[in-house]
Amino acid sequence: MHDTTNWVTEVYSKDGSALSLTGATKLHEEQSPFQRIEIYDTAAFGKLMVLDGCFMVTDRENFLYHEMMTHPALYTHPDPKTVCIIGGGDCGSLKEVLKHPEVKRAVQIEIDERVTRVAEQYFPDLCTANDDPRAELKFIDGLKWVKDAEPGSVDIIIVDSTDPVGPAEGLFNEAFYRDCHRALGDNGILVQQSESPLFHLELQASIHGHMRNAGFGQTRTLFFPQFIYPTGWWSATLAGKGDLHNFRRDDALNKPYATEYYNADIHQAAFAMPEFFKRRLAK
Amino acid sequence: MHDTTNWVTEVYSKDGSALSLTGATKLHEEQSPFQRIEIYDTAAFGKLMVLDGCFMVTDRENFLYHEMMTHPALYTHPDPKTVCIIGGGDCGSLKEVLKHPEVKRAVQIEIDERVTRVAEQYFPDLCTANDDPRAELKFIDGLKWVKDAEPGSVDIIIVDSTDPVGPAEGLFNEAFYRDCHRALGDNGILVQQSESPLFHLELQASIHGHMRNAGFGQTRTLFFPQFIYPTGWWSATLAGKGDLHNFRRDDALNKPYATEYYNADIHQAAFAMPEFFKRRLAK
Repeated sequence: MHDTTNWVTEVYSKDGSALSLTGATKLHEEQSPFQRIEIYDTAAFGKLMVLDGCFMVTDRENFLYHEMMTHPALYTHPDPKTVCIIGGGDCGSLKEVLKHPEVKRAVQIEIDERVTRVAEQYFPDLCTANDDPRAELKFIDGLKWVKDAEPGSVDIIIVDSTDPVGPAEGLFNEAFYRDCHRALGDNGILVQQSESPLFHLELQASIHGHMRNAGFGQTRTLFFPQFIYPTGWWSATLAGKGDLHNFRRDDALNKPYATEYYNADIHQAAFAMPEFFKRRLAK
Repeated sequence: MHDTTNWVTEVYSKDGSALSLTGATKLHEEQSPFQRIEIYDTAAFGKLMVLDGCFMVTDRENFLYHEMMTHPALYTHPDPKTVCIIGGGDCGSLKEVLKHPEVKRAVQIEIDERVTRVAEQYFPDLCTANDDPRAELKFIDGLKWVKDAEPGSVDIIIVDSTDPVGPAEGLFNEAFYRDCHRALGDNGILVQQSESPLFHLELQASIHGHMRNAGFGQTRTLFFPQFIYPTGWWSATLAGKGDLHNFRRDDALNKPYATEYYNADIHQAAFAMPEFFKRRLAK
């Protein structure tokens, strides 16, 4: 038996496993109108945000997720001027998006303002772009915002949501993707965080199906490591009105900012499909 | 607090984290002359082998490690006839190696015969190639075997070892790599499991240094997911006497056997270096 005092643990009950961070001190806990928000300080991963019991962000390794939710789509679109982030309340995706000088407007639509306020307090490094004049932070329902958006007015929609249960459930279906398709301009790209290839293969396949049915001509999944998410192996699925194989490689090679994970080679590598995934999509 | 009854847990104490598999029943436990060997049946991952407290193999996701320790090197070498596996007592790497019809001889040198005997009992799927006439199972010290091998007699050496503490410590240094260099023929390749980029970056950099100092002209690290190893993100580092950028892509595309993860695209993608890794190696 291990002494689990001061461990913070997420149990993946459907998949018979659990991840713990040790040496954890709870710094904050509240029940927002949408979910339970907890912040811990941990021995080796810095601060940790937990929403409804699910690990969301740590200081040490959030760069993987935030870089991969943003830069691949931004360097695929030929000219991304307007980007909308649905969810993303920790502001890490917003920060990465605004590293791109070609972006003129980035709208973050997080339903739960408390997530952002807590992130501003405990994850200041993720919130450094919140005051960028190109950033708009809205605390409303993303589903409704997308439905009401002027057709063709957005270049990239990034669905940086929690799992497809609770507040985020409506973000994983065809009706929402159809609204996204309408809001996106020519060459528009939708990015959906799409869970673990080991645990959620059927969900991933269904996301491809819903996106195609919603009118997107192309869909591609990219894969990346993410320790604190179930299995440590995560994905994002892109839907494109244009060609998702387009890649502004020279721009990525000459990006005017630093990254920790993403680069031009990682961009291309991330889209390689594991054999079991390829077989499932071919069905 | 979570009810941790029937959890089997590995604590990554230096890195403040822990992974558990739930619904676990212990099927076997013994102290071999080299290490403590445990076998569990788990709720969602099938059988699990634990050596000295470290998770080694599960039924559900061992394919990632075994395919990536073998096929990339085998499709890089122009004509791999003789392959030697140091460690690899669960026999999973041996099985993958012997899927290649061009391999004429595969020698597995595991210091702890009990690991293999226990694997034969609890992981029969990994041991299906043990009776292949091309397979030789030796239970001796791999360090000594490599030192005594005829110069230039081996095409690929795969170091499928535990962590660089305990029985495997001597497998991570320059003297051993020099012996491997001598044992390898022209275009010979050494493959070393090389831990997690998030937790073991300095070790990985030192492996590259030791391999270069041992006489190898090229070194490359490949990356892959592996849920039950620390951080869920793992790596293997290759050292080549020939060109590690060589890739028998047509052969990989037309491989006469099934895989779960590896394919020609994954081969090329796995070598993409994360930005932080590239920066560290450039130092």
